[in-house]
Amino acid sequence: MKQPIQKIAVLTSGGDSPGMNAAIRAVVRCCFYHKVDCVGVYRGLQGLIDADFTPLGPRSVKNIINQGGTFLKSARSEDFRTKQGREKAYKNLKEATIDALVAIGGDGTFTGCKIFNEEFNFPIIGIPGTIDNDINGTDYTIGYDTALNTVVEAIDKIRDTANSHNRLFLVEVMGRNAGDIALNAGIGAGAEEILIPEEDLGKDRLIASLKRSKEAGKSSSIVVVSEGDQIGKNILGLAEYIKENLQEYEVKVTVLGHIQRGGAPSCYDRVLASRLGVAAVDALMEGKRDAMIGIRHGKEIVVPIVEALKGKNEIDLKLIRVADITSL
Amino acid sequence: MKQPIQKIAVLTSGGDSPGMNAAIRAVVRCCFYHKVDCVGVYRGLQGLIDADFTPLGPRSVKNIINQGGTFLKSARSEDFRTKQGREKAYKNLKEATIDALVAIGGDGTFTGCKIFNEEFNFPIIGIPGTIDNDINGTDYTIGYDTALNTVVEAIDKIRDTANSHNRLFLVEVMGRNAGDIALNAGIGAGAEEILIPEEDLGKDRLIASLKRSKEAGKSSSIVVVSEGDQIGKNILGLAEYIKENLQEYEVKVTVLGHIQRGGAPSCYDRVLASRLGVAAVDALMEGKRDAMIGIRHGKEIVVPIVEALKGKNEIDLKLIRVADITSL
Amino acid sequence: MKQPIQKIAVLTSGGDSPGMNAAIRAVVRCCFYHKVDCVGVYRGLQGLIDADFTPLGPRSVKNIINQGGTFLKSARSEDFRTKQGREKAYKNLKEATIDALVAIGGDGTFTGCKIFNEEFNFPIIGIPGTIDNDINGTDYTIGYDTALNTVVEAIDKIRDTANSHNRLFLVEVMGRNAGDIALNAGIGAGAEEILIPEEDLGKDRLIASLKRSKEAGKSSSIVVVSEGDQIGKNILGLAEYIKENLQEYEVKVTVLGHIQRGGAPSCYDRVLASRLGVAAVDALMEGKRDAMIGIRHGKEIVVPIVEALKGKNEIDLKLIRVADITSL
Amino acid sequence: MKQPIQKIAVLTSGGDSPGMNAAIRAVVRCCFYHKVDCVGVYRGLQGLIDADFTPLGPRSVKNIINQGGTFLKSARSEDFRTKQGREKAYKNLKEATIDALVAIGGDGTFTGCKIFNEEFNFPIIGIPGTIDNDINGTDYTIGYDTALNTVVEAIDKIRDTANSHNRLFLVEVMGRNAGDIALNAGIGAGAEEILIPEEDLGKDRLIASLKRSKEAGKSSSIVVVSEGDQIGKNILGLAEYIKENLQEYEVKVTVLGHIQRGGAPSCYDRVLASRLGVAAVDALMEGKRDAMIGIRHGKEIVVPIVEALKGKNEIDLKLIRVADITSL
Repeated sequence: MKQPIQKIAVLTSGGDSPGMNAAIRAVVRCCFYHKVDCVGVYRGLQGLIDADFTPLGPRSVKNIINQGGTFLKSARSEDFRTKQGREKAYKNLKEATIDALVAIGGDGTFTGCKIFNEEFNFPIIGIPGTIDNDINGTDYTIGYDTALNTVVEAIDKIRDTANSHNRLFLVEVMGRNAGDIALNAGIGAGAEEILIPEEDLGKDRLIASLKRSKEAGKSSSIVVVSEGDQIGKNILGLAEYIKENLQEYEVKVTVLGHIQRGGAPSCYDRVLASRLGVAAVDALMEGKRDAMIGIRHGKEIVVPIVEALKGKNEIDLKLIRVADITSL
Repeated sequence: MKQPIQKIAVLTSGGDSPGMNAAIRAVVRCCFYHKVDCVGVYRGLQGLIDADFTPLGPRSVKNIINQGGTFLKSARSEDFRTKQGREKAYKNLKEATIDALVAIGGDGTFTGCKIFNEEFNFPIIGIPGTIDNDINGTDYTIGYDTALNTVVEAIDKIRDTANSHNRLFLVEVMGRNAGDIALNAGIGAGAEEILIPEEDLGKDRLIASLKRSKEAGKSSSIVVVSEGDQIGKNILGLAEYIKENLQEYEVKVTVLGHIQRGGAPSCYDRVLASRLGVAAVDALMEGKRDAMIGIRHGKEIVVPIVEALKGKNEIDLKLIRVADITSL
Repeated sequence: MKQPIQKIAVLTSGGDSPGMNAAIRAVVRCCFYHKVDCVGVYRGLQGLIDADFTPLGPRSVKNIINQGGTFLKSARSEDFRTKQGREKAYKNLKEATIDALVAIGGDGTFTGCKIFNEEFNFPIIGIPGTIDNDINGTDYTIGYDTALNTVVEAIDKIRDTANSHNRLFLVEVMGRNAGDIALNAGIGAGAEEILIPEEDLGKDRLIASLKRSKEAGKSSSIVVVSEGDQIGKNILGLAEYIKENLQEYEVKVTVLGHIQRGGAPSCYDRVLASRLGVAAVDALMEGKRDAMIGIRHGKEIVVPIVEALKGKNEIDLKLIRVADITSL
Repeated sequence: MKQPIQKIAVLTSGGDSPGMNAAIRAVVRCCFYHKVDCVGVYRGLQGLIDADFTPLGPRSVKNIINQGGTFLKSARSEDFRTKQGREKAYKNLKEATIDALVAIGGDGTFTGCKIFNEEFNFPIIGIPGTIDNDINGTDYTIGYDTALNTVVEAIDKIRDTANSHNRLFLVEVMGRNAGDIALNAGIGAGAEEILIPEEDLGKDRLIASLKRSKEAGKSSSIVVVSEGDQIGKNILGLAEYIKENLQEYEVKVTVLGHIQRGGAPSCYDRVLASRLGVAAVDALMEGKRDAMIGIRHGKEIVVPIVEALKGKNEIDLKLIRVADITSL
């Protein structure tokens, strides 16, 4: 017979993303709502191995909903990849009388959780927290919307100076192997071209397109390049290639970097994180295990963790058409 | 036999909202894509009556995607409510050889468009542009996401000072008869209570709830009040009532007002506006009429205008539960 | 013979302002630099009476430089206005072996400190922290620059919607009896008119000026009104008066309110707060007492507290001319 | 006998900076105030050679005070470095009956203006517009304050992720040979170390300092590096060196790049630009020539252009001490 859950641990793992604090807050307060204890684990899966725990009550999470990053800190754990590490983690959880775990993170985190669950049959619910929006089974991941706004605001600034000087800017954005940030922020920033891993534009078509832009009367251009794109991966080489083939432009490169991971979360990310945090605890209390809470068509859903690990949904081809048309 | 569409007019009407410029831009460039002419109408439906037209090409709409407001300006038109006014509008459209119209606005705009279409069988497609998110048949309206971020950022600032002084703040937000802004921004801002028109909390339950907050150790509180809420409508009276019944707090009132309508649109609103603008022109070219373009489950859809006018979808009750739990 | 200072207390009092946390941080770390102990006092002067003290080390103030408000909280203290209250405060300070005090606040705070110093000869250094910039002897007060940016960003948003609708907006800003916020933010926001307490424009000249604006081709207008201005004090009455005398405009009122007190401090306010915090501790260590640290011509200065209490420097008349010319 | 000035041209040259539009607006409206004509020159000094002129009236500059960049565009002109180019420029100015010039830019611009004035005795007043704050004779240049806020906001975001992961971030900021941006933004962002060209810290002292930070309990660190700093110039090499000598940290590099040049100007920059723009036209009308308008101790001053070209004021050593103390 299943034991009732009386104590839930929560951790953040992998790359941090804005809204993780809001998700922790929702987990903690929903534990309080269900009258179960809540424990925070510092530094992600590594904190399980180090038994780096702290009790969390409703007042422990005040004034964090608007803070970027994660106050529980995050880390990548090599130890958790070993059987020995996971055994230690299990022992620590048992000793602390923790009955279940909410893990906020990306696919690396979920892979670790899945193995752990298989080995120890320990109840875990995942919450997708990554700016990359590259998790299957959810329309949005926590932090993605904020990152889009951060990128768009940065490119708005770059456009001020691009317009003032008739320049071409290559702007590299994050996203690992997913072009979601590049494509959406590219449309939002009014980019002339967007290079994403899901679509191979080819250098020559890029040059041809930029030439058409110039002929159409555009005096400056922004090209958004996803870090995972084939030709974008070598962004400096791409800049050189453009300089050689499009002498009328002065070409500049900006790599937006880690500003994309931080900042106060957008309202959407705060609400999403609140909803997923509540739903994660609800799911554990209802006996769900080995699953991720996602958002699909505006509603919280429970997704088997194997589904979440299946790799990202395809990119929306209609959106590429919107990008093409609105940049005419 | 239907004439092919060769010239499309675009206008913005009713209250302005961030992203309207991005929608105009998408309409203009999608006209160019379909090789049809595009004409801008100034000051909404009134501009039809005054024949206040301007030709718009792809370069006319450069550098506006990031601008709040609408460069075509907006207005409420009394004249368009008269048969005579609408006849003049029709005559002007015909004289300018305009074959179809894209109208960006809210339900007032769509009502006018519906009557106009009935009277003159003139092809019109509506695009939902309002911060209130109160249009049926679409999950989001253009400007709503930006308004949420504006409200949340404003309340973050108010919370700084609330926390420093152990104060209770009543913050009034827009939304007409829809509580969407209040509920979502309230969750996002970590409000203790949220008063929305769709749910009658009652003054006494509010007082009881604030007392519980105080006893739970909260030293300051934010109550978000929708302008359409019954008890919130008289926000100064509410403040007095709280002062009388909760003497331990210093009560302050802030009415956020028109800052909620402006500002650079969020990435989401820019992308939404771009998608709806493209889809509106596509729809006209495909022979659709008397309809609104909405977004549903992440996809553009064509909604009969009568559907759009049916009044807002119900508020999500699960979201009220999330608000209640995360404010514990 | 003077005892060397071995323990310094720090508090924030009166209305909070962005940058107060940065000032506390600088005080704490400069104490550490001088190898003296530092104690935080909660809730301002009231905390002295309640002996609400906490030891503060360099790590206690990490990650607060970018936070609005004050983590030591602030309050207005009626008790401190009584001899009895101040005697209790003195007793508490002695019992806690505190040798000196840094008080961050405005003129109310400084008045209290001056009396306390007179009565007990207790070393106090003040730091000007208020958004109003209404302290004599310093060019800037902590929080003023941030408030200016907050106001200007808010009016930028209002202007989006004002432009879209040909509207006149009256925007009330803070400043108590000082017009600094209104005048500078009014110039920065491109306001058509600015009403400040230091200058009596008169309703009729305002109407005449708005008429000229209209005739000069302006389609919308922003009037910034200082809360301390004579005709602005009744801003709703002013709106009515304008409506009656300028029928071509739709008149709207926005009271910006407490958003002006919060928010992440600007770089200027963070640097100013850091400089004044360091200089305050330096001054105490050098034997200075009964003084305020100000900034004058870009340099930290020590101002006798009686000077600081003499009332604000005059408004810069040349700046009014700049406002008049740039709004033509 | 001197001819009265009846037509003034205005241009922006060199790197653009936020607030240039506000300065142009003030020049245009102050010309209107003095009842002299105003002409805009596109693309800086090159526009003089190409006679790329446009008449500017008060309404030409509406709604630009809040826009980054410069609507007159900017450029670096090789032609203007030649005698032949400058002769053509002079001829164009005479043909357009332009009597005087206001040039907004940095030292490159002023050097060109000085030579031009020497050759043709043509009245020119310069206005310092550059984010670098590297012009002699003025306490602030237009755009500097905005750039500081942009940098501080970016580092606030980076700190969110740095804190979540116990990382060391090297953040490169602009400033050419001046450390003003790095030093002030470094203090404002709470950086652990700041590398500026004016002070040679040395790699070993940097390593020692970071070790002390770690021992003092800091779990993450930000090092702000000015682009002009000797060891910072090779920021990737510096990152490698730190990795080798401080293995406990994960080291990341972010080059903020051109986001620092754009964005809506801060209130301070808008007011500064308005004041300098007005003062420049006033100065020309009063017969001043061959000078720059600066701000010194809060007042507009007229500085001989040779003074402005003398190279930057020294860095404030007391500010380095503040940085050292507040980062303890």
